[in-house]
Amino acid sequence: MSFALPKYHAPDFTKPEFVSAPDVKEAPAPKDGVAPEGYHSTSMYPEYFKVAGKWTLAEESRMDSSVVIRDDGHLDVVENRNLKKGDRVVVGRTERAEEGIFLYNSGFEEPGESTFDDQFVFRQGRSRETSYARDYDRLIELLKYEKEHGKVVWVMGPAFAFDFGARRAMASLIDHGYCNGLLAGNALATHDLEGALLHTALGQDIYTQKSMPNGHYNHLDICNKVRACGSIPAFIKEYGLDDGIICACVRNNVPIVLGGSIRDDGPLPEVIGDVYKAQNAMRSVVKDATTVICLATMLHTIATGNMTPSFRVLPDGTIRPLYLYAVDADEFVVNKLLDRGSLAATTMVTNVQDFIRIVANGLIK
Amino acid sequence: MSFALPKYHAPDFTKPEFVSAPDVKEAPAPKDGVAPEGYHSTSMYPEYFKVAGKWTLAEESRMDSSVVIRDDGHLDVVENRNLKKGDRVVVGRTERAEEGIFLYNSGFEEPGESTFDDQFVFRQGRSRETSYARDYDRLIELLKYEKEHGKVVWVMGPAFAFDFGARRAMASLIDHGYCNGLLAGNALATHDLEGALLHTALGQDIYTQKSMPNGHYNHLDICNKVRACGSIPAFIKEYGLDDGIICACVRNNVPIVLGGSIRDDGPLPEVIGDVYKAQNAMRSVVKDATTVICLATMLHTIATGNMTPSFRVLPDGTIRPLYLYAVDADEFVVNKLLDRGSLAATTMVTNVQDFIRIVANGLIK
Amino acid sequence: MSFALPKYHAPDFTKPEFVSAPDVKEAPAPKDGVAPEGYHSTSMYPEYFKVAGKWTLAEESRMDSSVVIRDDGHLDVVENRNLKKGDRVVVGRTERAEEGIFLYNSGFEEPGESTFDDQFVFRQGRSRETSYARDYDRLIELLKYEKEHGKVVWVMGPAFAFDFGARRAMASLIDHGYCNGLLAGNALATHDLEGALLHTALGQDIYTQKSMPNGHYNHLDICNKVRACGSIPAFIKEYGLDDGIICACVRNNVPIVLGGSIRDDGPLPEVIGDVYKAQNAMRSVVKDATTVICLATMLHTIATGNMTPSFRVLPDGTIRPLYLYAVDADEFVVNKLLDRGSLAATTMVTNVQDFIRIVANGLIK
Amino acid sequence: MSFALPKYHAPDFTKPEFVSAPDVKEAPAPKDGVAPEGYHSTSMYPEYFKVAGKWTLAEESRMDSSVVIRDDGHLDVVENRNLKKGDRVVVGRTERAEEGIFLYNSGFEEPGESTFDDQFVFRQGRSRETSYARDYDRLIELLKYEKEHGKVVWVMGPAFAFDFGARRAMASLIDHGYCNGLLAGNALATHDLEGALLHTALGQDIYTQKSMPNGHYNHLDICNKVRACGSIPAFIKEYGLDDGIICACVRNNVPIVLGGSIRDDGPLPEVIGDVYKAQNAMRSVVKDATTVICLATMLHTIATGNMTPSFRVLPDGTIRPLYLYAVDADEFVVNKLLDRGSLAATTMVTNVQDFIRIVANGLIK
Repeated sequence: MSFALPKYHAPDFTKPEFVSAPDVKEAPAPKDGVAPEGYHSTSMYPEYFKVAGKWTLAEESRMDSSVVIRDDGHLDVVENRNLKKGDRVVVGRTERAEEGIFLYNSGFEEPGESTFDDQFVFRQGRSRETSYARDYDRLIELLKYEKEHGKVVWVMGPAFAFDFGARRAMASLIDHGYCNGLLAGNALATHDLEGALLHTALGQDIYTQKSMPNGHYNHLDICNKVRACGSIPAFIKEYGLDDGIICACVRNNVPIVLGGSIRDDGPLPEVIGDVYKAQNAMRSVVKDATTVICLATMLHTIATGNMTPSFRVLPDGTIRPLYLYAVDADEFVVNKLLDRGSLAATTMVTNVQDFIRIVANGLIK
Repeated sequence: MSFALPKYHAPDFTKPEFVSAPDVKEAPAPKDGVAPEGYHSTSMYPEYFKVAGKWTLAEESRMDSSVVIRDDGHLDVVENRNLKKGDRVVVGRTERAEEGIFLYNSGFEEPGESTFDDQFVFRQGRSRETSYARDYDRLIELLKYEKEHGKVVWVMGPAFAFDFGARRAMASLIDHGYCNGLLAGNALATHDLEGALLHTALGQDIYTQKSMPNGHYNHLDICNKVRACGSIPAFIKEYGLDDGIICACVRNNVPIVLGGSIRDDGPLPEVIGDVYKAQNAMRSVVKDATTVICLATMLHTIATGNMTPSFRVLPDGTIRPLYLYAVDADEFVVNKLLDRGSLAATTMVTNVQDFIRIVANGLIK
Repeated sequence: MSFALPKYHAPDFTKPEFVSAPDVKEAPAPKDGVAPEGYHSTSMYPEYFKVAGKWTLAEESRMDSSVVIRDDGHLDVVENRNLKKGDRVVVGRTERAEEGIFLYNSGFEEPGESTFDDQFVFRQGRSRETSYARDYDRLIELLKYEKEHGKVVWVMGPAFAFDFGARRAMASLIDHGYCNGLLAGNALATHDLEGALLHTALGQDIYTQKSMPNGHYNHLDICNKVRACGSIPAFIKEYGLDDGIICACVRNNVPIVLGGSIRDDGPLPEVIGDVYKAQNAMRSVVKDATTVICLATMLHTIATGNMTPSFRVLPDGTIRPLYLYAVDADEFVVNKLLDRGSLAATTMVTNVQDFIRIVANGLIK
Repeated sequence: MSFALPKYHAPDFTKPEFVSAPDVKEAPAPKDGVAPEGYHSTSMYPEYFKVAGKWTLAEESRMDSSVVIRDDGHLDVVENRNLKKGDRVVVGRTERAEEGIFLYNSGFEEPGESTFDDQFVFRQGRSRETSYARDYDRLIELLKYEKEHGKVVWVMGPAFAFDFGARRAMASLIDHGYCNGLLAGNALATHDLEGALLHTALGQDIYTQKSMPNGHYNHLDICNKVRACGSIPAFIKEYGLDDGIICACVRNNVPIVLGGSIRDDGPLPEVIGDVYKAQNAMRSVVKDATTVICLATMLHTIATGNMTPSFRVLPDGTIRPLYLYAVDADEFVVNKLLDRGSLAATTMVTNVQDFIRIVANGLIK
C-alpha cells in the first residue's frame, strides 16, 4: 500500500443556496479581547464566508475562534483574547449558508466510495481492543509521504523520555527527517536531557531501571545546570551531549516549543511561562503542519487539538487534509479528545513507547 | 470518634550527634534563578539546619526548593527560579546531621503505638478496592476540627463542576465554612459559571444531561461575557447569579487562585497566565492551609502537592500536621502523586462527585 | 419526583406489513446443542414471530439465543447449547416482518415527548465526568417502586465486600427488602464471610485497613471451614454470624447464585462449578427480575447482561421495562457492556462503595 | 546480551537451625476436600519440609495449597478441594524451620551482586511510564533460550485475537517453536476462528475495522459450526482453515486448554465447563512450563498465576526459575497480580497487540 492524498472537492458556489445567500454580518469587537454578541465561532473544518458577494475560505483556521474580516477581504481566525477593539468580527451561528456562513465537512470524500477517510466511520469506541494493524500501516505510509511533501509536528507528554528504547527510536526518526516541530513541556525536555547527561529519568536508569543514590536530585540538577548555561543549546554544547530527543531536535534545527505549566520545576530557559504566549507559539508551529502526532499527554494533546484544523491550504493553493493522531495508554484521554469535538483524529490506545518503536521500525531499516 | 491533633515531638538537639554536628555550609547563588553547585533541596518534611551553632527549622517549607539563610538567621525556602544572585544558599545532600542538615519525618509519631498516622503503613497500593470507610469517618472529623481551628484549601479539576449534585454539595460546604481557599484553573471556573447562568456544562444540562441546541457556544459565551464584564464578581453581579462553587466563594470571600494552562479558552480575567506567578499565588494560599483536598486533577494535584509540606507552624509556634488528600477516579493519578514523593497524603480512588456528596452529607444536616 | 412506570405500546398488528407478512420459517435442530443453518438469534428487545398466522411475543427472552416453537404455539428462547435434536427452531435474519420476525425496540416510548427512557439518547460516552445526580434520584425512586411491585437482583464483583461501609449499606438494603436475588462468585461470598467471622478481607481489617499477622490464611480458612460445615447456612449457624451481605441474604431468604470461575479458591459448597449450569441458575433468578444492578464485575456484569432482556412480562400480562444498571470504576468495563449490544442499560462510573452508600442513604432513614 | 540461567543455591541443611528443627507435624484430612485445622498453605517459592529427619522439597508446588505426605515420602502439593479423607496433610504456619517448614525465596540470588533477578527490587509501581526496553531485550533472549531448553506457556485474554497483526505475529511465534501450550477461554478461540473463517472478530473486519452487515451473527455462527463439526480440529479440516492462533496450535500439536466462564456463548466443544476440572487441566500444562506469559486477561492471569510456582525442577533434578510475565493495558490488572502475592512476575503495561509485534519482530527475521 502506498499513500495517495485524497483530493479536495471545493463546494459548488454556483448553486442557488449559495448565490441567494446574504453577505455575512459583522460587528466590531467592543474592546480588546472581547467578541461582540453573537460572534461566530470556528470549527476544525473548512468554513466559507460570503463577503462582498464572494464566498471566501478562512484559510488558517482552528476551533473556537472568531473570524475577523480584514480590510483587504482576507479572513483571519483569531482567538477572542487576541481580538483588538474595533476588529470586524463575523456574527452568526448557522452554518448552512443561511447567514453567509458555510461549514464544509465533506470536502475530502469521494462521491461514491470513500477512501482514506472511511476510518471516520469507525472512530467511535476505540479502545485497547481495537485492531490497529491498518492504522500502523497507514501511518507509516503517510509519514513516508510527509517526509517528502509535508511537515510532521510531534506533541509529547512528560513521560515519553522515560524509556531508553523510545528515546532512541524517536531520535532516529528526527535524524531521518520525520520531525518538523516538537511541542512539549518543561518536564519532557528536562527528563530527556537528564537521560542525555546522566542516563536516568527522575533518578532511575532509563535502561536498567535501577534507582541511583540521591537520584531525585538529578532532575533538579538538570534544570539548574541548563539555567546556569542560559539555554538548552548552550547546555548541550557545554556538556558535549548528543543523545536523545532534544539533542536530535537541536542537531537537526527542528523548532521546539515548550509550554509552561503550574507543575514545572525549573523551568528551562526556553519554556514559555505565559501560557497564552505559549499557545501563540504552538499555533505558529502548527500552522505549517500537515500531520500532528500527540503522544501520552492529555494537556498538550487537547491544547494542540484545539488549534489544529482538519485541513491545510498549501502555498500553491491546494487544500489537503491535516492528519491528527492521538496515542495514549488510557481510553479516557483519547475519548476526551473526541468529546471536545476534535473529531478528525485517529486515536490509538497503547503505550507510546511501543507505538514509537513500531513506527520507527517500519520507517528506518 | 472525634478528632485529636497528634502532638509534635521536636528532635532532642542535646543528643551528641546534633551537638557535634558542624554548621551547615552555604554558597552564594551565582546568578538570579540559579542555585550554587551542591545546593540542598528540601522535602515535604520538617528540616532543621545548624546555623551559627543553633538548629533552626525552615518553617515554611515545600518540596524541591533551596534554603536561603537570611541575615537575621531566618531560613526561607525558595524555589530556585526565585533565588536572587548572592542569596546565601544551603549546600549539602545528607540529611542526618552529618553536614548540619537534619530531615525529621517522625515528629508526629507517638513513642509506642502510632495513632492518626498509622495510615502511612498502608498507603501503598491504594486502589478502587481499598476500604475507605475509615478515611471518610476521619476526614469528616478532621473537617469539623479544621472549621474551628484550621484552614482548608480545596483543589479542583475542570470536571468537578459537571454534576448538579457535586456543585450543590460543594457550595454548601463553602457556605458552612469548610473552605478557606480554592485552587483551580480556567476551565473549572468557566464550567461552574456556565452552570450558574445557563444550567449547563459544555452545553449539556448538569442535571438532565440533555444537550442544548448550539450548546457548544455556552462555554465560549461565558468566557466572553466575563471578559466583557471585566471580572468574575462583576459578572456575577451583572447577571444576578448565586448558584454553584464560584458564587459561593465570592459570597463568602474565599480566595480563589486560577492558574492558567495551554488548554485554556478565554481566559477569565482572574486567570494568572504566567504559570510561575500562578505557582507563587498558589503557594501564598497554601502557606496558611492546614488541610488540602485535591479533587480530580492530576495537573493541579501534583502542582499543589509539590508546594505543600507535611507540617504547619501555627502562629503560636505549635507544629501540627498538614493533611493532604488526593481523590481521583484513576489509580494512576493518585499513585503518581505518591511516586513523586508526596508521601504524606491520603489517596482515595473514586468519582469525586460521590466523594463530595458523602463528605457534605457527613458534615451538614 | 416519584416513579411512574412507562406504558408499553404493543405493535399494531392490523397494519398491512404485519398482515401480509409470511409465517416465520423453522428448521429442526440437527443435533443436541446445535442450531440449524440460518437460525434466528434473539436480542434483548421484545420480538414477535408470526406463527400460524398470529404474531406472538417470545416472552422470556435474552440475547443471542434461538427461538423454539413448542407444539402448543408457545415460544421458548433457548441458548443453542440447550437445544435438543429436532427442536423446531425459528430461521431468519431479518427483523422488520419480512420473514415473519419483528423486533420492537420502541415499545416504551411515548408518541411525543419521551419520558423515563430519554436517557437512552445520552447513553454513549458515559465517563467519570458525566453528571449522575439525576441517575441517583431516579434509581432511588425506582427502588422504592420495585420494593412494592418488582424484584431487584444484584450482581456483585469480588471486591464489593472489601469495605466496611459498603457491606453495612448493602446488608441494610437487603434487610429493608430491596434485594430479591444475588448473583456473584466464590470470591465475593468468601470475602464477605471472612468479614463476618474475622473482620478482615484477604487478611486486612475492613475498617482500619490493618494487615493481620498471617492474614493471608484468613481467606483460605474461611473456604475450608465452610466446606467442613457443608454449606454456607451451616457455617453461619455454627459460628453464630449475622454481619454482612451473605448473612443478610440467608436471614432474609434471598436466593444466591454463586457461579464458579477458574480463579476460585475453595470453592464454597454452594458454588456451581459447571459454568453452563451456573448460567442456567443465574437465568432462573433473572427471569423474575424487574431491575438488575451490576456492581464492579466485568465477568458477572456481561454474563448477566447477556441473559437480561429489556422488558418483563408480568403475571397479569402487562409488559414493563426491565432496568439494568452497571456500575464500575472503569469506563472500559461499562463501555464494554454497551459494545456488546446490552444497550438498554444505565451505566455509572464510580467506586461501588460510594455508590451503595449513596443509594442506601437515599432509601433508609 | 545472551541469556544465562541463574544458578540455584540450595539451602545448607547442615546449619544448626535445620539440624535442630523438629519433623513437620501432620494431620489427616477430616473429609474429602477439607484440610485439617492449622494446615500449612504453600507459596510460589520453594518450600522444604522435614520428614523423618530429612529436609525434602515439595517439587511441584503452587500457591494456596496443602502439602500431602505420601507413604513413600514424596510431597504432593494438593489444592484443598482435591484432598481425600485421610490424606496426611502438613500442619504448621511458620516458615523458618521452627516447625520443620522452610520457605526459601532467595535461592537464585548470587551471594554478592544479584543478577537477572535484581528486577525484583524495582517491581513495585510499574506503570505505563516504566521503561520497558530492558524487559523486551531480556524476554527475547529468554525465549531464544527456552526454545532450545524450556517450555513456554501462553495465556490469552479474549481480545487478543481482535487484531490482524497480533494474530499473525502470534501464529508466527507458534510456527517457529516458541509456544508449548496455550491457556485461554471460549471467547479467544471463537474470536480467532471467526478471524480464520470470516476475517472478522465480533463481525468487524480484523484489518479494515469495517463492520459487516449482520456481523453480530458471525460469532454465534462460529460456535454453532464448530459444535456441529464436533471439535475444533474437525472444524478446521472441514473448512480448510490455516490462519491465526488456534490453527497454528493445532498444526503444531500445541496443547490448548480452554477454561469455561459464565460469559461464554457456545461453548466450543473443547471448552471445559467445570472450572475446577479446567484448573486441573491448566495446572497439568503449567507443570511443564518454564516460562509463562499472560496477555490481556485478569481472569486467566490470576488463575494461572495462582498455580504457577517461581521455580521448576527439571527432569535431571536441576532447579531453575520459572519466569512469569503479565502484560496488560491496565495498571490495575498487573498490580492486582502483585497484590495477590504472585510476586515473582515481570509486569508490563501496554497494549498486548504491540507487545506481541515487538516480541515477534525480535525473534523472527
